[in-house]
Amino acid sequence: VIRVGIVGFGTIGKRVADAVTSQPDMTVAGVAKRRPTGAAEVAVRRGFSLYAGGAPPAFESADLDVAGTKADLVDESDVVVDATPAGVGAEHRDLYEATDTPAIYQGGEDGDVAETTFVAGANYEAGRSAASTRVASCNTTGLARLLSTLDSSVGVADATVTIVRRGADPGTVDRGPIDDILPDPVGLPSHHAGDLRTVLPDVEVATMAMKVPATVMHLHAVEVTLGSRASVSSIRDLLADEPRIALLPGGAGFDGCGSVRELGRDLGRPRGDVWENCVWTDSMDVSGGVFRCFQAIHQESIVVPENVDAIRALVGDADGAASRERTNRTLGVGLDLSDKRVPA
Amino acid sequence: VIRVGIVGFGTIGKRVADAVTSQPDMTVAGVAKRRPTGAAEVAVRRGFSLYAGGAPPAFESADLDVAGTKADLVDESDVVVDATPAGVGAEHRDLYEATDTPAIYQGGEDGDVAETTFVAGANYEAGRSAASTRVASCNTTGLARLLSTLDSSVGVADATVTIVRRGADPGTVDRGPIDDILPDPVGLPSHHAGDLRTVLPDVEVATMAMKVPATVMHLHAVEVTLGSRASVSSIRDLLADEPRIALLPGGAGFDGCGSVRELGRDLGRPRGDVWENCVWTDSMDVSGGVFRCFQAIHQESIVVPENVDAIRALVGDADGAASRERTNRTLGVGLDLSDKRVPA
Repeated sequence: VIRVGIVGFGTIGKRVADAVTSQPDMTVAGVAKRRPTGAAEVAVRRGFSLYAGGAPPAFESADLDVAGTKADLVDESDVVVDATPAGVGAEHRDLYEATDTPAIYQGGEDGDVAETTFVAGANYEAGRSAASTRVASCNTTGLARLLSTLDSSVGVADATVTIVRRGADPGTVDRGPIDDILPDPVGLPSHHAGDLRTVLPDVEVATMAMKVPATVMHLHAVEVTLGSRASVSSIRDLLADEPRIALLPGGAGFDGCGSVRELGRDLGRPRGDVWENCVWTDSMDVSGGVFRCFQAIHQESIVVPENVDAIRALVGDADGAASRERTNRTLGVGLDLSDKRVPA
Repeated sequence: VIRVGIVGFGTIGKRVADAVTSQPDMTVAGVAKRRPTGAAEVAVRRGFSLYAGGAPPAFESADLDVAGTKADLVDESDVVVDATPAGVGAEHRDLYEATDTPAIYQGGEDGDVAETTFVAGANYEAGRSAASTRVASCNTTGLARLLSTLDSSVGVADATVTIVRRGADPGTVDRGPIDDILPDPVGLPSHHAGDLRTVLPDVEVATMAMKVPATVMHLHAVEVTLGSRASVSSIRDLLADEPRIALLPGGAGFDGCGSVRELGRDLGRPRGDVWENCVWTDSMDVSGGVFRCFQAIHQESIVVPENVDAIRALVGDADGAASRERTNRTLGVGLDLSDKRVPA
């Protein structure tokens, strides 16, 4: 059983901890938290051993039992998932490398923090020979899933994607915008294209990104010049075969991202998470060799299955297909809505 | 002097009435309003003769003097600008045609409501021989301005635009979304592409549209495959020469649409309106023969100069260049921010 240390217990860390708990071949060695905040209390209530990322006395005065320091947790772990805020992961790298502990970073870190950037369906094998990897950001993960699926079958000559990003996660109160639409970044193409190249080096992609006053999901307007002739129905079948891509049928009330998240809650998923790329079936169009669609990406949870697979790639014995199948089955990834028996 | 009847006094009608007032060759014959709402009171306070679009008694009981009925206004007018809500203009067509009154409709109407669809810089001449025209919608107007400017110089092979639309105007309380991002319409390409073809039949464009929780402006992510080789600086010079396109310099605090609107207010413009396409200079990029940029479109006011020009095209004696110059000068269209002396 792989002992997984979770460093950082925010949006990603708490989800990965739960996901690891549900894996038969993994266990959570413990959770390191910098400060004794409410999230630390949640970690304890969820039964995780709490390690002090910062000064232990602060935790004691908060009446929280700590099992040790962050360094102790690394010692206890076969692999570490670093889910600290962007830039903090890089500060921890020396600690992981000094103890030869394989480490998984998140997409907020720079690309050179780890040996590879990881999206399970696109380049699982590259992670197998690495001592560290970086799970791609939510937008890059969503694009890599869609484009690698298309590329493996019909081919992708090039792609242009407009990424309309949610301004902040639901619990965040100090980020905007409110009642505004921002080019973000202004410079084109956006950095997402370069980030995607770390996962799919041979796919030519240009990205343009904006930020808007929403917390629910990102929405991508995708245009792909296909490498070979394909029909909408053949692409629909192709995407339907990929459990980490869900097709949203027409006439089922999926007017926006909010209704997709509501379905996640109605299905009883943890935190109502939607781990799948959600593609509107009625948006799918092919004309003049160009495929277009809209897809929604749940920024808080899409990388959770990828983190689980990254653990197996680095220190497990499963190949990519086996790992993804196990992760999907244990988490419940896969939304077959083709029968339209969904909320209207 | 051209006597202009304004039918409908909402977002567009009230702005066109003010703009007509500032033209030396035009006068407002009167304003027709369906109901004696606060906007009718505003029309009276602004000195416009009020005509009852609906039942006159309702206006009398609201203590508003009416000069006559909607039919009376049409009789008094050399040309009518119909700025009623989408679909209502078509209901008025019989009235205008029965009295041989040239009519200008708005982009909310179907394309076949009038003989042509009008964007001053793209097809003014087509309006000259017509008895009716439809001023294109705000998004179509913004795209036609940009693409016709590019097409006339470097050529446009094809274009893809993601249109991120403000969900509602500031005074609207019964439209969404709140905290959501919607593909709207879901089907691709969106109707905007077909609408644009009514103005620029030879330009190949695909559009994808979304709706977001903002009221300020629309934001377009534009990708244009150029018909000939061009540099960013040559395109910048080209756009800078077009008064209805404003270039937003970098480092000047234009982080989003809100700052652009704030500039319109700071400049003392009526209602803080921004009649120009606003293109972020730092977003302009040319690579592999493809030009990309972000542009913001103020949905409430961008069609105001076009309505003024449409009046001249239908019943005036100016050619397109002369009309546009006169409209720009009298309204104050044109934002030269190239010296960066703008709010930071």
